[in-house]
Amino acid sequence: MADHGVPVLRWEESAERPPKLVLLDQTRLPAEEVELACKDVPDLVAAIGALSVRGAPLLGVAGGYGVALAAALGGDVAQAADRLASARPTAVNLAAGVRRVERAYKAATDGGAGEDGAAAAALAEARALHEEDAEASARMARLGRELLGELVPGRRLRLLTHCNTGTLVSGGKGTAFAVVSAVHDAGDLQQLWVDETRPLLQGARLTAYEAVRERMPYSVLADSAAGSLFAAGEVDAVLIGADRIAADGSVANKVGSYPLAVLARHHGVPFVVVAPVTTVDAATERGADIVVEQRPAEEVTQISFPYRSASGTAGEEGVQLAPKGAEAYNPAFDVTPPDLVTAVVTERGVVSPVTRETVAGLCSPSRTRTSRWGNGMMNA
Amino acid sequence: MADHGVPVLRWEESAERPPKLVLLDQTRLPAEEVELACKDVPDLVAAIGALSVRGAPLLGVAGGYGVALAAALGGDVAQAADRLASARPTAVNLAAGVRRVERAYKAATDGGAGEDGAAAAALAEARALHEEDAEASARMARLGRELLGELVPGRRLRLLTHCNTGTLVSGGKGTAFAVVSAVHDAGDLQQLWVDETRPLLQGARLTAYEAVRERMPYSVLADSAAGSLFAAGEVDAVLIGADRIAADGSVANKVGSYPLAVLARHHGVPFVVVAPVTTVDAATERGADIVVEQRPAEEVTQISFPYRSASGTAGEEGVQLAPKGAEAYNPAFDVTPPDLVTAVVTERGVVSPVTRETVAGLCSPSRTRTSRWGNGMMNA
Repeated sequence: MADHGVPVLRWEESAERPPKLVLLDQTRLPAEEVELACKDVPDLVAAIGALSVRGAPLLGVAGGYGVALAAALGGDVAQAADRLASARPTAVNLAAGVRRVERAYKAATDGGAGEDGAAAAALAEARALHEEDAEASARMARLGRELLGELVPGRRLRLLTHCNTGTLVSGGKGTAFAVVSAVHDAGDLQQLWVDETRPLLQGARLTAYEAVRERMPYSVLADSAAGSLFAAGEVDAVLIGADRIAADGSVANKVGSYPLAVLARHHGVPFVVVAPVTTVDAATERGADIVVEQRPAEEVTQISFPYRSASGTAGEEGVQLAPKGAEAYNPAFDVTPPDLVTAVVTERGVVSPVTRETVAGLCSPSRTRTSRWGNGMMNA
Repeated sequence: MADHGVPVLRWEESAERPPKLVLLDQTRLPAEEVELACKDVPDLVAAIGALSVRGAPLLGVAGGYGVALAAALGGDVAQAADRLASARPTAVNLAAGVRRVERAYKAATDGGAGEDGAAAAALAEARALHEEDAEASARMARLGRELLGELVPGRRLRLLTHCNTGTLVSGGKGTAFAVVSAVHDAGDLQQLWVDETRPLLQGARLTAYEAVRERMPYSVLADSAAGSLFAAGEVDAVLIGADRIAADGSVANKVGSYPLAVLARHHGVPFVVVAPVTTVDAATERGADIVVEQRPAEEVTQISFPYRSASGTAGEEGVQLAPKGAEAYNPAFDVTPPDLVTAVVTERGVVSPVTRETVAGLCSPSRTRTSRWGNGMMNA
């Protein structure tokens, strides 16, 4: 485990001082590693809104600690939970983490625990959530590494990834990046190819930063340069995360994932999705049912995220790339059909081939005990 | 011909004043349309070096006018030609245009023309070069439009293009963009999809600007969002230019072209290359023989081209995108094998299918008279 950076999220308390939740401020990356101390719930709500903390699983963990913080400070925990849960309306994991810790707090209160006892119960639940998330990452990492060993035997690996799926979005090592990290820790990573991931450049800004933290051999590339890597035989496998997996196994993920799947198929390269079981949305029947959100044109026509100049000065306003007022087509994600996905790696096991039946098996624990990933499901 | 902007290049002279070559300063696009007057050869050499004028065919035309300018001003024309020809060492068309006008000047001098007569001969040759380039564009535009009418009959077209191939790089309307423009002029363009073309964003900055000039319906997109357009059935054909075409029909073009070819094949969409016959390099046997130039990492990890902020202020230094010192894989172009290319449109005719034999036929005028594009060659 070669992580050399500032912790992404940590609970800090001592006998002398009130507790606080300390976050690595992701808006300052990759230029600076600055910690942001949230001493109360309004601080944390602001940090979530500003994207100082982001990524579905990590938001759940942060939200859970937020409830624990409210409980420790003795405020109105139910009101704090409501504010936290709605700090980013579309973040399902955030609300889920918040409500889980709130339930633990209420159960303790209902069970006759005093204020301190209920606060301790809330903190214990937040810590359990955090640990479970880290354990799920560790299991996906192990299963993914074993899978790659079978798919691409006998060589150090050249892995291509897209967007940001590591410690910055997770209570642990993340999803696809956790697998890369496990391969690297085992001494088997020859090269990590990092798609820059336009328009918001999460690959160039954040995944490259994580690769530096873990001292991996890596290169950033323009997304469309991936084609040249495939053509040159320089990619052994593609590893990506997932925003949502439909019941038929279609994978919604950051825009640019689908072209990688098509290139991987054209070149006979494995295309592997790494995601926790919670990503499977059984209520969405087919990939075609997933409505793709269109995001603002300015994300493409300007550079509007916080940036620094090459000499380190903070940029004060967006950089105009296209003509002012230019129209842009800017889908947030794309959908990869299951027949282009070699395998889905979850904390419960590996699904391959990816079909409606194998995906359904993933969600019913009683059916997860088949013997090998190649024949359907492999239990974790 | 609905071009409403400042001319990209014009020769200006009057009885009262010495001649000059006036360029649209492409480094100021898309923010401003500013003309740059070159009153002598050093001015033009500086403009070429600064990329104020760029694009293979346009550089040839500009170089030709540069020799005419030297002749009109009465300087050392041979020395001026040498300086112009080497203003950008890898630009083959630049040297070719310069040497062609220099030969016309020498022939006039050798034939006994006085200084004024030789200068007039040089200017006439530069103008002829300019006109020939415009005529070649017009022929490619007509042939390309006819081809699209056959490939995608009976509907207004949704065309996807990559990089910048229009009036900004040509003495006329360009290559791929000239075809788009002809479709638009005929009222048959439903939508132009403009790949932003990372890393240098020639699509977002320059092709979008050209689309605005011609009042086309268009949208810019992150290169990797093209996959979503194909998946949604929103692309009727892909049109790109070419840097070089090998004898086997392999097409070297701006990085990102090859992934479009793979996507187009996967979705059964025509992938059409538009380029003058001079692009065919018979000395390069196969696509694999083309050595791909790796360009500086900073093109990917920083925004280092001239830019403006959203409020119009000129940026003074590069914007840092990836961690400082990040490695990058940055190939200048990629190579698309001939079996993924539906057709090559040239000023001499359309080649389809693209094979060693049909490409060879393109270069030997006696063999260009086959009847239809679908059966090999169609004469222009």
